[in-house]
Amino acid sequence: MSQDISKTDSASNFPAFVHKRKGGAEYHRTCRLDPNNPQSVLHVVGTSLKANLNRSAPPGSKFFSVKCTANVKFELSPPPVESSRGALVPLSGNSVILITMSHASQYEKDDKLSVRYYQSGSTRSVLGTAVLHLTAIEISLDVDADRDGIVEINNPHKESWTWGPNGHGAILLVNCDAEKIHDKSPDNEDPRIVKVADLKDMSLMVLRTRGPAELPEGYKLTMHISQGDAESVRVFRAASREVAKNSLHKLFSSFVKDYPLVLSSEVLSQEVPYLGGSAEMNFYVEGLRFPDKDFDGLITINLSLLQPVKQGIPETPIFTDKVVFRVSPWIMTPNTLQPVEVFVCSTSDNYQFLKGMKALVSRCGYKLKVCLEYMNRGDRWMQDELEFGYIDSPHHSFPVVLDSPRDGHLDDFPYDELLGPDFGYVTRVARRKDVSSLDSFGNLEVSPPVTVNGKKYPLGRILIGVAFPTATKGRNMTKVVQDFLWAQKVQEPVALFSDWLCVGHIDEFMTFVPAPDRKGFRLLLASPDAAYKLFRGLHNDGHGQAKMFDGIAGVKNEEEVTVDDILGDENLRDENNYVQSCIDWNRDVLKRELGLDDDDIIDLPILFKLEEEEDGSRAVAYYPDMVNMIVLGKDLGIPKPFGPKVNGRCALETEMCSLMEGLGLRCTFIDDFASYHKLLGEVHCGSNVRRKPFDFKWWNLEL
Amino acid sequence: MSQDISKTDSASNFPAFVHKRKGGAEYHRTCRLDPNNPQSVLHVVGTSLKANLNRSAPPGSKFFSVKCTANVKFELSPPPVESSRGALVPLSGNSVILITMSHASQYEKDDKLSVRYYQSGSTRSVLGTAVLHLTAIEISLDVDADRDGIVEINNPHKESWTWGPNGHGAILLVNCDAEKIHDKSPDNEDPRIVKVADLKDMSLMVLRTRGPAELPEGYKLTMHISQGDAESVRVFRAASREVAKNSLHKLFSSFVKDYPLVLSSEVLSQEVPYLGGSAEMNFYVEGLRFPDKDFDGLITINLSLLQPVKQGIPETPIFTDKVVFRVSPWIMTPNTLQPVEVFVCSTSDNYQFLKGMKALVSRCGYKLKVCLEYMNRGDRWMQDELEFGYIDSPHHSFPVVLDSPRDGHLDDFPYDELLGPDFGYVTRVARRKDVSSLDSFGNLEVSPPVTVNGKKYPLGRILIGVAFPTATKGRNMTKVVQDFLWAQKVQEPVALFSDWLCVGHIDEFMTFVPAPDRKGFRLLLASPDAAYKLFRGLHNDGHGQAKMFDGIAGVKNEEEVTVDDILGDENLRDENNYVQSCIDWNRDVLKRELGLDDDDIIDLPILFKLEEEEDGSRAVAYYPDMVNMIVLGKDLGIPKPFGPKVNGRCALETEMCSLMEGLGLRCTFIDDFASYHKLLGEVHCGSNVRRKPFDFKWWNLEL
Repeated sequence: MSQDISKTDSASNFPAFVHKRKGGAEYHRTCRLDPNNPQSVLHVVGTSLKANLNRSAPPGSKFFSVKCTANVKFELSPPPVESSRGALVPLSGNSVILITMSHASQYEKDDKLSVRYYQSGSTRSVLGTAVLHLTAIEISLDVDADRDGIVEINNPHKESWTWGPNGHGAILLVNCDAEKIHDKSPDNEDPRIVKVADLKDMSLMVLRTRGPAELPEGYKLTMHISQGDAESVRVFRAASREVAKNSLHKLFSSFVKDYPLVLSSEVLSQEVPYLGGSAEMNFYVEGLRFPDKDFDGLITINLSLLQPVKQGIPETPIFTDKVVFRVSPWIMTPNTLQPVEVFVCSTSDNYQFLKGMKALVSRCGYKLKVCLEYMNRGDRWMQDELEFGYIDSPHHSFPVVLDSPRDGHLDDFPYDELLGPDFGYVTRVARRKDVSSLDSFGNLEVSPPVTVNGKKYPLGRILIGVAFPTATKGRNMTKVVQDFLWAQKVQEPVALFSDWLCVGHIDEFMTFVPAPDRKGFRLLLASPDAAYKLFRGLHNDGHGQAKMFDGIAGVKNEEEVTVDDILGDENLRDENNYVQSCIDWNRDVLKRELGLDDDDIIDLPILFKLEEEEDGSRAVAYYPDMVNMIVLGKDLGIPKPFGPKVNGRCALETEMCSLMEGLGLRCTFIDDFASYHKLLGEVHCGSNVRRKPFDFKWWNLEL
Repeated sequence: MSQDISKTDSASNFPAFVHKRKGGAEYHRTCRLDPNNPQSVLHVVGTSLKANLNRSAPPGSKFFSVKCTANVKFELSPPPVESSRGALVPLSGNSVILITMSHASQYEKDDKLSVRYYQSGSTRSVLGTAVLHLTAIEISLDVDADRDGIVEINNPHKESWTWGPNGHGAILLVNCDAEKIHDKSPDNEDPRIVKVADLKDMSLMVLRTRGPAELPEGYKLTMHISQGDAESVRVFRAASREVAKNSLHKLFSSFVKDYPLVLSSEVLSQEVPYLGGSAEMNFYVEGLRFPDKDFDGLITINLSLLQPVKQGIPETPIFTDKVVFRVSPWIMTPNTLQPVEVFVCSTSDNYQFLKGMKALVSRCGYKLKVCLEYMNRGDRWMQDELEFGYIDSPHHSFPVVLDSPRDGHLDDFPYDELLGPDFGYVTRVARRKDVSSLDSFGNLEVSPPVTVNGKKYPLGRILIGVAFPTATKGRNMTKVVQDFLWAQKVQEPVALFSDWLCVGHIDEFMTFVPAPDRKGFRLLLASPDAAYKLFRGLHNDGHGQAKMFDGIAGVKNEEEVTVDDILGDENLRDENNYVQSCIDWNRDVLKRELGLDDDDIIDLPILFKLEEEEDGSRAVAYYPDMVNMIVLGKDLGIPKPFGPKVNGRCALETEMCSLMEGLGLRCTFIDDFASYHKLLGEVHCGSNVRRKPFDFKWWNLEL
């Protein structure tokens, strides 16, 4: 997508800019009429000048008359009685003249209006004449307020921002990718434009002006932002009128010169050149930070015309044009979106797993990216260190990785390997002592689009796991990350209860898979009850002696357990009753907050067991936790459960396939037993998927 | 107003609490049916229990039947075909039972529901029976969500907060007054209730419960708030069921014991007693801070019923009731509201001024409070150190002084003299270097109610003065105060330009007076043009030699100036042209932002002159600045201008009276020349007025 769409061929053909305020009030400026001194006035087309005729009338004035040149129009209030043409108008206490001009002046003081005051109704009784020498210019600071990727001319709604398909207001990206390859850092940390490619991450803003070759002496144009907004935005300018578009090989210094920094946290107000004649000047607006607890995402940029007063006195802004941007939120992608790339780690001991993943991903036709050991330093939990999302605007979109404050050995991967051209990076820094296992992003998921009691969430809802809000102690997702997630607004988060799990991630008991019917997906929940039901059925069918964990490669010592052993273990049953009640608690919340029915949920036969910890007992999966799967379109990569075999086939796999095949989904079971399951994670924990963005545009949300 | 209105005589007569969620969805809880173990379930009336009949059915089950006691109702899904009464129901994969109970149980396990599973359609083929022993309780956490001053029972909207006359949601006051007289500090800084009078500053919240004498073993009630809300709220509890209402002379320690602190920033979650039977327990909710940049004013308080699990595992919340409060904003009072008290300072040199003020205020029938020199330490600028406002709720309202970060010698006055029982105090602390003359509250005013392009501001709009937004340097109102003012939301501020004035306060060029017609007020603006017009008229009428500053008591050396001297001073004319352009700039903004016409504005004949300063020239009043007046109903206390006399009467006073008398206003001219005007202030700067609150309630705003 090009940022140069605003370059209309004939800038001189656009209509005069009319500046209407919200609600339709026009932009009036009070001006003074002085019978003793002719005034020079610079007028902005689309506004009006308003003068009280009585205020500076010579004493004794009873009548007045007005003359003006063709480009000038005026109205009188109270309106004169139309008795005879050319008759003098009686002067009243509140006689007001409203002056407008229809187009820009070619030369300074091209136009003129004069008011003559009289002592009586006779044209001979002149007491004085107030003369205005008028120069008209047209000014419009323009953005893509209608969100079609094109910077239109003087959109009447450019000063405000509203949500929805009928909404308006321009959009800004946080320039959090890195165009530079050497000495890499996110572009929003560099107050310079060093590559032309960086321009496309910014929003184009065009200053359109028409008027004489130069502004009258002392007048100037100034662009300005508030102190609050300056933390969140930078504005650059295209230095020359015609920036060479394909000058990819320009020298670094030349680039910096071609795109001087206009506004930043250091400079809140700066003069911008007036080019004269019919001109367009391009500005590039760069978002610096994401919405957060203290930033609602809205930014206003102002352009003012300043009138000189005198030495030592600040110039007066006589006209201000404003545009409003909203920074794109960071958006997560649910399992129902099409995958682009799959990420896994290679470690010294995960050959079996990698082989399974490679086979699955290549069969599905997606890219597999393997993070090698020098980078992952043995940390295999690709799900936990980062979350893929994206930012979007009408002119550009790119993926952005949210780096978790978990900061395991994979810590450098998002910054060093993912951040790059058109791949953004954002993180939130927490104090070490505030970070827990619940800050891993296996504990951060997003639902497919849902509608809840009539309220639409076309981008789904973010799901995180925390301790019970009633708990007086317990682990939580750290506040800075929670604040960030809530502030994005477009995928309103839901807090689930995950502190009952040893690792504490919601992906240990739930996931979403696509479905051809109903809401377009199913929620899969781990269910000890479903597992016990399955095992009881096996027992009744005469398979009570079938063994679990049979034939696990490389794990010879694993204790083999029969179906009857499991059914007879009362302690295990107790523990799973508790686990089921925890999952049921989440089930109730998910049903309420995602608007789900029981038929939207599938219970998977999974057992847990409790492990004693310092501050109580918490749950881990008893056998590989099938819900912790990778979802790639219609293909599911599921932890191989090593369940009891019936007629040579694992009964858990049979059940899983039977539950999924009705939805048209293919199950591939991946052996993660030794290298993941035994370390308290599974396939999902050990992988990550970058997906295509939603077709739905976030600004079309009705918030 | 009493906080005890919730004490209904017969708590047992209220209907059962139905808990509906926003949008009408009911509160379902998943429960488990276990044919092997009878379950005991504590049920909350108004919610429903939902159990999947198939999930724990004995293998081979094909049919089921349900039996229950009279207080239990159930629905089956899919609904059974009504073929013959007593026939068994076929069990399908998704057979679900929805259980409700109509009223609280008198004893534990009063009720029962059982599901029997069968292998065939014959009642003889029983495979197992799942039994639920049911105990029902009713719980409702109640607030005054309909804003009538009474805590109603289980308002269906109590969980959310909306603006407007049809809006809902409870209201909280920042408990910023000081009930204690000794060792005084605002009550919100003390985590104890030490006087019964303090209760009325808090919002009553009632926990209503009905059920057996005790909760089943291990169950408990817990009240909890989020970490974010805990900075803004405290919750106390009335310790005994019947708090003696008039026990004014209780011992301190007894009070603290009677109202134990339940929730605070130290304790986010705490168990509260279950009283048994039909009971009400009173809680008192205390707001701790005003809305600000990082606090939207909304607070949620939760009450959960916890189910025991087992040792070392946190109890599961099985039901949560929520209430939402919004903290009252701080509201300013415009000149059109009725005065209550007038404040001035007594200094060694202001006898003349004090005499004039005393005469005016006593004639008008208001109270005059004089701040004596030991307290003001020579600082006479009563307007600048503080701003009076108020906070309001359906149950209580009191004035709150906003203490300016100006911190002159009057600094201690707001805290030491104003803060007290039912008189609140709030301030914002800025770094010394960030504070300028623009932080004095002569630079903080509020308009009367206005409507702007259809948008209503029934509480008016706050007005402050700043530098031009385009200025690269200049003085400003400090950010912490601006953030505070904007965050109150109900009187959306307008920034005017006041940095052109030496002192830099908007009250140097504008004020509002009541009017019987049009919008109910007029905006008065200082106008050099109006002054020159008056002086030119005097000259034309032969009074060119009339002297200004004639007969000023105690100021012998003041240079006398004639009307013609003024008209002949071209430099003064230039300076006033500049001043007029600054005021006109503000006039245009005020017209736009307050929706005013020219006819709503009156120009007062006032001249200024420029003083050279380090960083440029700034304006001061040339003669006493009549717009800087005190407005007391229909009486105006106006700085005596000492203008040229015509027929023995000051022409400026004559003009002023003539402009005001059409509005039915009386002008009293007060000599402030030596003790205020010469120090660059006038009557308004040297006084302050506490006014009655608006009749309009802020929560009825449609925001």
